[in-house]
Amino acid sequence: MKLSKKERQELVIQTIKDDPFITDESLAKKFHVSVQTIRLDRLELSIPEHRERIKHVARKQLDDVRALQLEEVIGEIVDLQLDEYAISILDIKKDHVFERTGIARGHHLFAQANSLAVAIINDELALTAKANVKFTRQVSAGERVVAKAQVKKNDQVRTIVEVNSNVNQELVFSGEFIMFRSSGKETSGEGEKV
Amino acid sequence: MKLSKKERQELVIQTIKDDPFITDESLAKKFHVSVQTIRLDRLELSIPEHRERIKHVARKQLDDVRALQLEEVIGEIVDLQLDEYAISILDIKKDHVFERTGIARGHHLFAQANSLAVAIINDELALTAKANVKFTRQVSAGERVVAKAQVKKNDQVRTIVEVNSNVNQELVFSGEFIMFRSSGKETSGEGEKV
Repeated sequence: MKLSKKERQELVIQTIKDDPFITDESLAKKFHVSVQTIRLDRLELSIPEHRERIKHVARKQLDDVRALQLEEVIGEIVDLQLDEYAISILDIKKDHVFERTGIARGHHLFAQANSLAVAIINDELALTAKANVKFTRQVSAGERVVAKAQVKKNDQVRTIVEVNSNVNQELVFSGEFIMFRSSGKETSGEGEKV
Repeated sequence: MKLSKKERQELVIQTIKDDPFITDESLAKKFHVSVQTIRLDRLELSIPEHRERIKHVARKQLDDVRALQLEEVIGEIVDLQLDEYAISILDIKKDHVFERTGIARGHHLFAQANSLAVAIINDELALTAKANVKFTRQVSAGERVVAKAQVKKNDQVRTIVEVNSNVNQELVFSGEFIMFRSSGKETSGEGEKV
């Protein structure tokens, strides 16, 4: 069923609203048109290019990150409200996957989620005490993993961060991270002395 | 209290028995002698050099690894009985730690344990479905993490691997990894479709 230009552009607007970090290539694939067509759509709709959308969101907030250096985050943070929520993207490359099967190795998904859980903490020191994670779908090279972190509970001693990671809106990873912060009484480490 | 040579050598034998991968430097520190003295002890006791002890154990078993390429293991496997137990060592370097605090990042300890849990599986395909991990003590650059994996439960669908990681016999990380293997009916991923 071929969409008219008007129909397609309305859907492009909606799709970008739901997934702000979707690439032109993914949009082209989704609507069965060329990448050129998507670019023209964006031009006509005054929607900036993908990386510009990322930078625009990120510039405002990345200075806020306290618990680690920005370059220490695995993946790229694209949205951040300290102690509330954060989003990062990680493009899976060939060196992220098992050679034989082409499946992404779990520790990369863990690293993306774990470093996001650290970055979300509004404190100088934030370390993971515990993590309970599930790998719900295989991920391959060439896929883009969007991790969304949300602070679920926050008391003076610990913060619970829930992270859900998707590829094209399909859940690939989910985890609960129990974080200790520097204002806590116990000595915490990527550890705890309790 | 200064030990006699005889007393020290007896303790050196016992210490190496408990921790086969301990370095000469650690032994020297432990017994308050020079590294040279430890080397002479080993010579007199016919105990091979540290790396030779590793190679000797490893050579026999590393060809057995099926689920991934040996170089894909994070850390160095030093003991392995498929579907039973495995041990690996990971030396924490400067690029493994947070810049500001010098504390090792959780995902490296996770990666060491997770890849060991994959390597222990006697199958062509082994992927992590779930993991519940604790970080119990901070780890710093220069420390050596010894991860010990044990298969706790093994049915046709899933295998439960328990991993405990130590630095100088002190627990720094522990985790339970629920693994899916290729003989399972469900499609598993670093994932599952259940």
